[in-house]
Amino acid sequence: MTKQIVDLVLYAAYVVPVVPDDAVLEDYAVVIHDSRIVALLPAAEAQQDFVGAEEKRLERHILLPGLVNLHTHAPMTLLRGLSDDKALHDWLAEDMWPTEKQFVSPEFIEKGMTHAVAEMIRGGTTCFNNMYFFPDVICTVLERTGMRGAVGQGITDMATPYGTGPDDFLAKAEPNLKKYAPGYHDLITVTMAPHSPYTVGDDTFLRLDALAKKYDARVHTHLHETEAECRDSEMQNRSSMCCHKSDQKLRPLANFKRLGLLSERLVCAHMTQLTDEEIDDVARAGAHVVHCPTSNLKLASGIARVTEMLRRGVNVGLGTDGAASNNSLDMFAEMKLAALLAKAESRQSTSVPVAQALQMATLNGARALGLEHEIGSIEPGKRADIIAVECNSIEMLPMYNAVSHVVYTASRNHVSDVWINGKQLLCNRELMTINEIQVKNDVHEWAERIRIFRDNQHRKN
Amino acid sequence: MTKQIVDLVLYAAYVVPVVPDDAVLEDYAVVIHDSRIVALLPAAEAQQDFVGAEEKRLERHILLPGLVNLHTHAPMTLLRGLSDDKALHDWLAEDMWPTEKQFVSPEFIEKGMTHAVAEMIRGGTTCFNNMYFFPDVICTVLERTGMRGAVGQGITDMATPYGTGPDDFLAKAEPNLKKYAPGYHDLITVTMAPHSPYTVGDDTFLRLDALAKKYDARVHTHLHETEAECRDSEMQNRSSMCCHKSDQKLRPLANFKRLGLLSERLVCAHMTQLTDEEIDDVARAGAHVVHCPTSNLKLASGIARVTEMLRRGVNVGLGTDGAASNNSLDMFAEMKLAALLAKAESRQSTSVPVAQALQMATLNGARALGLEHEIGSIEPGKRADIIAVECNSIEMLPMYNAVSHVVYTASRNHVSDVWINGKQLLCNRELMTINEIQVKNDVHEWAERIRIFRDNQHRKN
Repeated sequence: MTKQIVDLVLYAAYVVPVVPDDAVLEDYAVVIHDSRIVALLPAAEAQQDFVGAEEKRLERHILLPGLVNLHTHAPMTLLRGLSDDKALHDWLAEDMWPTEKQFVSPEFIEKGMTHAVAEMIRGGTTCFNNMYFFPDVICTVLERTGMRGAVGQGITDMATPYGTGPDDFLAKAEPNLKKYAPGYHDLITVTMAPHSPYTVGDDTFLRLDALAKKYDARVHTHLHETEAECRDSEMQNRSSMCCHKSDQKLRPLANFKRLGLLSERLVCAHMTQLTDEEIDDVARAGAHVVHCPTSNLKLASGIARVTEMLRRGVNVGLGTDGAASNNSLDMFAEMKLAALLAKAESRQSTSVPVAQALQMATLNGARALGLEHEIGSIEPGKRADIIAVECNSIEMLPMYNAVSHVVYTASRNHVSDVWINGKQLLCNRELMTINEIQVKNDVHEWAERIRIFRDNQHRKN
Repeated sequence: MTKQIVDLVLYAAYVVPVVPDDAVLEDYAVVIHDSRIVALLPAAEAQQDFVGAEEKRLERHILLPGLVNLHTHAPMTLLRGLSDDKALHDWLAEDMWPTEKQFVSPEFIEKGMTHAVAEMIRGGTTCFNNMYFFPDVICTVLERTGMRGAVGQGITDMATPYGTGPDDFLAKAEPNLKKYAPGYHDLITVTMAPHSPYTVGDDTFLRLDALAKKYDARVHTHLHETEAECRDSEMQNRSSMCCHKSDQKLRPLANFKRLGLLSERLVCAHMTQLTDEEIDDVARAGAHVVHCPTSNLKLASGIARVTEMLRRGVNVGLGTDGAASNNSLDMFAEMKLAALLAKAESRQSTSVPVAQALQMATLNGARALGLEHEIGSIEPGKRADIIAVECNSIEMLPMYNAVSHVVYTASRNHVSDVWINGKQLLCNRELMTINEIQVKNDVHEWAERIRIFRDNQHRKN
């Protein structure tokens, strides 16, 4: 019998494919060819049927689909830990905005994005949903490093380092919406990424949503992040920075519903404030929620009602938010925290069991990006976005249930190998497409500039 | 000028001594002799004044006092991830108790404890407060490995694998209380560790507290872990497994106060349910609280009011609880989660800033154990319990503030070196006093027995 020749065969002690949702396949193989998974079968059968141009034995490892970070501002890694433990407005006004105003530029984005890709790959994240400036620069980094991403075109009603206002942002968006429309690129899609209802008015929202609809793109925004946002919008408290720009006395979600923005295109980050009726509205519309537990705790935004959302049929993924408010791009940490926090919030220790937490970190994120047929699980036909988690360290022993260990015990430091689109980007903890020493040097250089700027600022004040 | 000859000089890029509470000392040295810190001074001065039999340069590291895990059941690492996401009573009755009944023995304790010490040392924990059975076996492991611990003598009113009941437990306790009284041993102290008010009656509590008082030992117990414990005790709902054994219609803390148990000897784990008045009672008595955020979330016990406790002067340390309900002995994770959760609980993003979180994980734990003059900070005169955290990995860059990075960004995997009582137990991530391969083999062997037992149990049911 002739064996089929393929690009790569991964033999692993355990495969957790995510579909079906709590399956753990022991002594299995994943067969990869031409960037896609072509078979998932017992190791013994794989050995009979396939021969790989490359074969890898992962005898002390769990194979998982790569994690999907559904909400981040990736290049902000350069501002990691710049300022913490402040009230949100002080943190923004005293630290984030002046520093971003001074430094955000194509070069800053290029260095920060490369650094963030290095961090994400080392931590088992293989796809991310980004909101920041200079999407073209970000796309270049993804092409160069082999990282998968949904690249957001940041939009506000004000000028930013990237443009003069909505007209400019929308004009800049359209070429990318065409170039990276679904199916046009192996790694990259683009999204419209209006910052929030309190920085973007109704008119801009309607225009960008029409554009997203035209090109089958997502709309990625911050929504119902804080109680103040909802209360001040409903009361039309215009003196509050959190009051939405609409003149409607409505909670922002109700206003979105009124405008027809609540659709399967919409990916809403945070959503810590939702009534039962609002959860039903989100579920009915097929809109997606990004739960960002670390960021929501750290900024005292509130605790999202994830258990109820899942029960009522909302698609909930997980995000780290930016490294300036986390202070990591660590999806293992978010997955564990999401499983833990749901139990406290719902007062049920059975809420968000491990398989569901893992699904949130993988398939639900893929679904939110419209990529559920391409990534998010280890199934034949899908892109080969796969990570290997080493499970023989002191901290990981003993292991009675691989899914439990992935969620509650593993950390990103246990990720040994990563493939995206069939290509290996991390091998035994070594980055394959990024020069780690160069990244560190670049980061040190930028940090030094930022440190000097801040010292001067503090001296002035 | 003659240099003073000492055992060890550690030169580090950064020293975070914890006292004063937000100090970051750059390019500093810690001088160690005869198990103690003898000087903390700028590197240049140390080079002039001291010569070490051993000198170590940690040029990309932060030196910290070792972390103090103030509440754990360490040997339960062997049951890590055995069962998750169940209601507390089902988890205990279906999984923990039958397995413990079958397996807990001196050999189980010896292997589990060695495994736990390996995990703790690798994660930067240099002292732990334990509650479990067979304290003699545990002391032997600490002597052999060089680990520091407060070894609890587990006590309930029922028989356990360790003894027939209170008389037996108290009789077994007294020799250890004498042998390990404060000041008698470099590494070990012992505590009375009654399980909880719902498994130990008033009379036993009074007897063990008298014994603790006689030998200047702590009393380490679970208290106010859940709402049900407080409510069912106050209502004398005897059908509830959470109702205290006292016949008083009181919340357990009020009953402790009545009995005179609320003192500076008392170390109370969990305390998720406290009124303002109860917090004041705890503060006034000088009793200590162990905040266990991961365990409290996972078991849906509630969220401790840490911000208010600290504001009212309660000494609050941090604990992991056992690895069967965490599922790790990772004090970096508890420290980050404590800082995050306090912000959500108090609705203030300024609550539990980084220096306070670090203090909880170090000095406050030391104080709770009566060891604040010996450990918990890097100060001359104290025992040399010191850890080095590597800060040049992709994930740790850039670094604007070392304390922020220790709390929000570092994980236990960044711990490179550990010293306890001046002796190096971890060197470049290698355990120095424990045979890692032997530990793994032992754990695999025990896990296999436990797995077979459980498979048989499931088949019966």
